Formats: sequence, structure tokens, C-alpha cells
Amino acid sequence: MNVNTKIHPTAIVSPKAVIGLNVEIGAFTIIYDSVVIGDNSVIGAYCEIGISSALSDGSPLVIGSGSLIRSHSIFYQASSFGDNLTTGHRVTVREGTKAGKNLQIGTLSDLQGDCLIGDYVRLHSNVHIGKKSTIESFVWLFPYVVLTNDPTPPSETQQGCTIRQYAIVATSAVILPGVTVGQHALVAALACVGKDVPERSIFGGVPAKLITATSNIKLRDGSNRNAYPWTTHFHRGYPPEVVNQWLRESHLELDQ
Amino acid sequence: MNVNTKIHPTAIVSPKAVIGLNVEIGAFTIIYDSVVIGDNSVIGAYCEIGISSALSDGSPLVIGSGSLIRSHSIFYQASSFGDNLTTGHRVTVREGTKAGKNLQIGTLSDLQGDCLIGDYVRLHSNVHIGKKSTIESFVWLFPYVVLTNDPTPPSETQQGCTIRQYAIVATSAVILPGVTVGQHALVAALACVGKDVPERSIFGGVPAKLITATSNIKLRDGSNRNAYPWTTHFHRGYPPEVVNQWLRESHLELDQ
Amino acid sequence: MNVNTKIHPTAIVSPKAVIGLNVEIGAFTIIYDSVVIGDNSVIGAYCEIGISSALSDGSPLVIGSGSLIRSHSIFYQASSFGDNLTTGHRVTVREGTKAGKNLQIGTLSDLQGDCLIGDYVRLHSNVHIGKKSTIESFVWLFPYVVLTNDPTPPSETQQGCTIRQYAIVATSAVILPGVTVGQHALVAALACVGKDVPERSIFGGVPAKLITATSNIKLRDGSNRNAYPWTTHFHRGYPPEVVNQWLRESHLELDQ
Repeated sequence: MNVNTKIHPTAIVSPKAVIGLNVEIGAFTIIYDSVVIGDNSVIGAYCEIGISSALSDGSPLVIGSGSLIRSHSIFYQASSFGDNLTTGHRVTVREGTKAGKNLQIGTLSDLQGDCLIGDYVRLHSNVHIGKKSTIESFVWLFPYVVLTNDPTPPSETQQGCTIRQYAIVATSAVILPGVTVGQHALVAALACVGKDVPERSIFGGVPAKLITATSNIKLRDGSNRNAYPWTTHFHRGYPPEVVNQWLRESHLELDQ
Repeated sequence: MNVNTKIHPTAIVSPKAVIGLNVEIGAFTIIYDSVVIGDNSVIGAYCEIGISSALSDGSPLVIGSGSLIRSHSIFYQASSFGDNLTTGHRVTVREGTKAGKNLQIGTLSDLQGDCLIGDYVRLHSNVHIGKKSTIESFVWLFPYVVLTNDPTPPSETQQGCTIRQYAIVATSAVILPGVTVGQHALVAALACVGKDVPERSIFGGVPAKLITATSNIKLRDGSNRNAYPWTTHFHRGYPPEVVNQWLRESHLELDQ
Repeated sequence: MNVNTKIHPTAIVSPKAVIGLNVEIGAFTIIYDSVVIGDNSVIGAYCEIGISSALSDGSPLVIGSGSLIRSHSIFYQASSFGDNLTTGHRVTVREGTKAGKNLQIGTLSDLQGDCLIGDYVRLHSNVHIGKKSTIESFVWLFPYVVLTNDPTPPSETQQGCTIRQYAIVATSAVILPGVTVGQHALVAALACVGKDVPERSIFGGVPAKLITATSNIKLRDGSNRNAYPWTTHFHRGYPPEVVNQWLRESHLELDQ
């Protein structure tokens, strides 16, 4: 254990866990054996980090540097996260989750494992990610969104959903098994999406149908600007190099 | 610390916290610095009370007298609650929540903060309250209801919902940004409400439309009484002075 | 306390609790007085088992042998479970729940109590079971399903739902008060079910209507087999005597 690490005296930390420099571990938290935590990370109180499971492949839980895991969260072993993971409270992450950097996982979200997640993905509160899901970079999933995987429940067939880059799925929508939501597409609140959503289109309803193109939606801020692609106006929390790239692409797009 | 206070020996309580007479604090619970808890309150086990945050204005978390916060709950600083707050388990309350007296918050509910809540509001299990929401007195929100706030997600525009006095939002309904649900109105289960709901009307469907007036709904208890306004027949948990006021108003209303 | 019991030193276990042979109790867990735990069971960390309540009849919480209760779960007294109960994390079970053997309760599920549950029932993550529900054997409820009970909320009338044997309710569906979902029926994702669902039929939509018979649905595994009844092909986790009985019945059914 590194001398700079600040472990609360009530925490229970395995001596086998690999814990970086300047890591804080909160009260009553348990860190199991098969865990690697990057430098400058903070683990809140009442967390369980690195639970072993018969379903795991034996690989450790790897959490990148600069991460913040808020209290009451549960991570199994055999998943990996890039730098700057940030979670809300009470998230659950099962084995086989492979995520890029700067992932945000909201309070109460439940990742069932065996999934791929890109960079800068933002999962709001209480999102449920079924196994075999693929979530590309810069995706937003809002509260109570569910990505399903079993086309004929219950069965042994798992057809994960694919959410392409920059897509947005609004509150309480359900994405049915095997569906792809296209780049920069928007799924409306409470939509039940049973077929692929083309890029830059909006689907809504139960069952979900095409409503319009995202290009027809204006911001509600008094400006007359387009709301989508959202990368043209929403930059909070993204680093300058990412935003600059978006703005360059946007400029080119407008020119075409 | 008051001599009558019963703090479990495993609890971690800041000496800076202001804790009233006859308060119980459960096992493994953490009370941070910036907290004021009223007399005769009970805080269950595994709670975190008064978490500090860069988003807070520095004001304390204030919890009124006679409150009951059930186990595994999390409250940030910079919110205030009137007397007799009652919560289920695992509620999360972020900074900037300003609530009146006798609020009930059900198990797993998630209040994102920066919201106004009246008196005698009842939030059932797993309710999600987005920032900038206004919930007037005597409102009922049922399980999995979501009050949203971003009309073009993601954006920097926050248009909170307003739920007027005595309104009821049934299970799993979503209220879209900026929508007002009128007094004594009823939103049906799984409704997606994108426009204002007039008082004493029922909206349902995805997207939600007018179904009928609440005055057309009878109780299912074998009586021939009207179900709405619910204040004419449902009185459990409200004090006599409140119920007597309702009955007086109801009588006048029937006379008109 | 039995000598073979493995209780973590940070756990708080009432000497009045009746704990079987070879039981494990995790770190920071609290076991209250009125609890009976069967042999060979495992209780994870941060659980509260056997909370007393003014609403209880004074009977103990009884958990059958071979059970696994994962961490952060909360059980009140006055409920009973057959052998081999398995839960995810953070489940909440209130008083008056009477369940058979081999029940699975997924992470974050919330059982409000006063309900009857058969054998081999599988509740996935974040299921909400209102009071007065009846769930027969071999039923599947998927994430965010809600069984409601109040036909005119709020009122004093409770009309529980009934889910018949082998029925399946898919993700985020709501079953309205008093509704019966028939044997081997399927409720589609995000359906709002306000009338009874006949056996072996599929209901979907808001409000839910008949879509087709379950016999018209094929597996998506490349075979040309029927997906329903699911007992003809899905056997994972069920004991041989159960599966053999299903196969015998299926054979007879096909012969007819």
C-alpha cells in the first residue's frame, strides 16, 4: 500500500489489491483482492470494489486514474475502466464491462456486464445496461433507459443493442434486443424501440416510429440555433481538444 | 452533542453537526459537519447525512423535528426540510432541495436538487425529480415517475416541471420539461406528458392526451362516490386540521 | 449461535436470531432479533435482516436453507421464503411477503409486502411489487416492471394483480390494479395493461391490446422452434425433475 494513500480506518482493504498513489478510500468500504485502482482516485463510503464471481474470467477490476466512485457502489472483478471514471451513488457494475475514459455512470445505474462502452459516455441515473450492449463514444442515456438483450424472453439468445456515437436516448425509453440507434439520433422519452433508428432521426412512441429529423429541432434558449448535433453547442465537461474537434467538424458540415 | 442523543457506537458523527434532543443515529451512519437535525428525529443505519459538494452554496442541511430517515439514505448539504420528513430506504437528495413539512420520500427516490417542494407531498418509491422542479403541497407522485428538465437533451437549458396542489402522477409516467400539471389533475400510468394538463383532467398515453375529467371517475370500493378530488375520501396520515379544511371546502364545492 | 457459522467481526448479530449451520454473514451487516436463517445460507455485507415494524404481525423473518442474499439488501420481519432464495444487491422486502422456494429477486427490486409468490419465480432487476400481488410459480418479471394495486390513487382500495404460472412480463411494463395476466401469457415491454390478458396471448402498447398468440413467435436462434411455451427450450437453473415434468407436458401438448 502506498504511503500517500488515505484509507479510512474502518475500511477493509485486501493487501493483494493494487492501489495507486494518492488514493482515498472511504469509511466502511471493502476492497477485495483482484483490484487495480489508478492514482489520484477517490472511492466513497460503503463501496464494495472487486467482488469475485463464478462468472468472471479471473482478471482483475481495473479502474483508471483520477476516478471518483461515489458511496454505496458495487463493482465486480473482471471489468476495466479508462481514466476519469465518475459514478453517482449505488451503481452496480458486473463482470465483463470494458469501458473507455471519462465514463459517467449515474446514481442507481445497473450495468449487467459483458458490454463495450466507448469514451466520454454519460449514463444518467438509474440506467439499465443489459449484457452484450455496445455503447459508442459520446453517447447519452437518460434516467430509466433500458438496453435489453433477449428477443424472446426467457431464452438463451442474447442480442445486444448498439448505440452509435453521439446518440441520445431520453428518459424511460426501452431499446429492444438487437436494435441499433444511429449516430446523432434521438430516441424520445418512453419510446419502445423495436427497429433500427437511422442516424440523425428522432423516434418516439410505443412502438417507436420516425417523428422527424433531428435537424428540425431548435434550442429552447431563445436563440434560433439548431439543437442537434448537440456537439455544436453543449461542451460542459469535455476537454478543449475534443470540443475543438467538434467545432471543426461542425464547420465543415455547415459548409457542405 | 446532547446527552439524550442515542448514537450507535459505530456511527461517525462530526462534532460540528448540530443535533437536537432525543435524536437516534443508527449503526455505521456518517453525519458530516454542515448538518442541523431537529429534535426527536431518527436516522437509520448506513446513512450519509450532509455530504459537502462543490455545487453547494455552503449552507447546511437542515432536517426538521420528528423526522425519520430510513437506512442507506444519502443527503447532501444545502437543502432544507420542514418537520416530520419521512423517507424510505436508499433515497438520494442533492443540494438545493427546499421542502415543506411532512414530506414523504419513498425508497430509492432520487431528488437531483434545486427544487421546491410544498407541504404534505408524497413521493412513492423510485421517483426521480429533475432540477428546477416545483411540486406544490399535497401532490402524489407514484413509483418510477420522472420529472425532466432539459427540452433538447443535452443542453444548458433547464425548464423544470410544475406539479400543482393535489395533483396525482401515476406509476412510470414521464413529465416533459416545462410542463405544468394542474390542480387536482391526474396523469395516468406510463403517460408521456408533453403539454400542460388542465386542472381536474386526466391525461394518458404516449404522447399523453386528454382522456376525461376526473369528475367522471368513481371509487372502486362498492360505493358510488367520486374518486376525485381525493381529498373528499382519503385522509390517512393527514392531521385533523387539514382534513377538516378539506371537508369544509368539499362541502362548499358540492353546494355550488 | 452455531459453531460453524462464519460471522464477520464487524457484523452486528442479535443473540435472539436463530441462525442455521454453516451460515456466512458479511461485514457491517445487522441481523435483528426476529429472524430465522436456514442452513448453508450466505448473507452479504451491509444488509439489514429482520427490521421490526409497527406494520408487522410480530412473526419472524424466515429464510430457507441454501439462500444467498447479496449485499446492501433489506428485509423486514414477518415474511417467509422457501429454500434457495437468491437476491441481487440492494433489494428491499417489506413485511407480509410469503414466497415459495427458489425465488430470485434482482438487484434494486422493491417488494412492498402483503403478497404471495410461488416457486421458482424470477424477478429481474428493479422490479416493484405492490401490496396484495399474487405471483404464481415459474413467472418471470423483467426490469422496471411494476405491479400496482390502487385503482383510483390515492384511495383505501387495494386490488392486487395476479400473474399466473409461466407468464412473462417484459421490461418496464405496468400492470394496473386488479388485472390478471394468464398462464404462459406475455406482456410486451412498456405495455400498460388495464384488462386481463388471456393465457398464451401477447399484449402490448399504451393502453395494452392483444397483439397475437404466443404460438406465433419463433425463437431467434436460427432454429425454427416456437419460443413459447418457453418451458420447451429454456431450462437453465431449474432442477431435472422440474424440466422433465415440463418436457412430458410439452410432448403431450404437441400430440394433441
